[in-house]
Amino acid sequence: MKQVMAVIRINKINATKKALNDAGITSFSATGRVLGRGKGLVDYRLLDGAKAGCTEAIAQLGQGPRLVPKRLLTVVVSDDWAERTVKAIIGANQTGCPGDGKIFVMPVSEAIRVRTGEKAEGASGGNVLDSSGGAE
Amino acid sequence: MKQVMAVIRINKINATKKALNDAGITSFSATGRVLGRGKGLVDYRLLDGAKAGCTEAIAQLGQGPRLVPKRLLTVVVSDDWAERTVKAIIGANQTGCPGDGKIFVMPVSEAIRVRTGEKAEGASGGNVLDSSGGAE
Amino acid sequence: MKQVMAVIRINKINATKKALNDAGITSFSATGRVLGRGKGLVDYRLLDGAKAGCTEAIAQLGQGPRLVPKRLLTVVVSDDWAERTVKAIIGANQTGCPGDGKIFVMPVSEAIRVRTGEKAEGASGGNVLDSSGGAE
Repeated sequence: MKQVMAVIRINKINATKKALNDAGITSFSATGRVLGRGKGLVDYRLLDGAKAGCTEAIAQLGQGPRLVPKRLLTVVVSDDWAERTVKAIIGANQTGCPGDGKIFVMPVSEAIRVRTGEKAEGASGGNVLDSSGGAE
Repeated sequence: MKQVMAVIRINKINATKKALNDAGITSFSATGRVLGRGKGLVDYRLLDGAKAGCTEAIAQLGQGPRLVPKRLLTVVVSDDWAERTVKAIIGANQTGCPGDGKIFVMPVSEAIRVRTGEKAEGASGGNVLDSSGGAE
Repeated sequence: MKQVMAVIRINKINATKKALNDAGITSFSATGRVLGRGKGLVDYRLLDGAKAGCTEAIAQLGQGPRLVPKRLLTVVVSDDWAERTVKAIIGANQTGCPGDGKIFVMPVSEAIRVRTGEKAEGASGGNVLDSSGGAE
């Protein structure tokens, strides 16, 4: 199993959810607020980005490292669904501007559904704990 | 070492803390706000859940995928305490309704206490960094 | 690659960011609000801490387990930068009082930059995805 964590733009969360749903990834995911960190200082990619009209690049011009509000999206899927999950997230978030975000894939040892105590430990051939209903 | 992450109901956080404490898990834990994702669409488990009087199931009837506020609880314990931690969380959160939440167990390479620089790398026979005092 | 997660004091976040920057760790990091858990009950280290004038120790005297607001800082770095990252965080946060926080190091399988689809899978000899510009 893998945990896929994506740090994405706040205004992309709904599009990302939809992309995951369209890709058949319907099981657990959670989002939280985070502050991502801009590189700041003199960064020529920022200048280039600002010329290209990238709003985050413009906002950071001439500033030191600062925090940019982002959303953190976490999805847990079986190993063979990790790639598809990453692709769906990239598809919904890639604008070509700095600030598109980053995705981290991390190992998960075990997933347990609280309602039933049921465990998913290996590649389950699809979503992890996918038979779950409702707001889990 | 293992990181045990549980996505649980907001109103279960105190009961879960108490259950962890009763189980002797007194070391580090952290909670954050997350939005869990309902399955939405037509989900017969939701209908069944609604008939059974499960509030989350009723709230989701007839809606598309939506976000449900949840709490994320993170506890880091030694390998041999992971099972006990999972059981304590299940015990405090299992209502039988969809929305009881999920628990993920993930590997941790190393835990360090900032105050002393002390490390816990292996199974420490109990809580990780348990000799810590105060609000760590 | 490693994910370094630190639970630190709210008022230490800027100093920690600066310390990371000074140590050359300029790539991705994210912060979130969490509630850390105090040990509460009768804890002689708290008494000792209170005598020594540690504010968190005083605030917790005579209380049961309670939640203390903290910041969660997450940085993803290549394996050989993990140690340096931990040291920078300790340097910025160590006061000697309980409540200095904890650091967890966790394995990361893969990091992907959304803008380019570029992946960093192994030790990259420096920061992960460090060539990134802007608010990523």
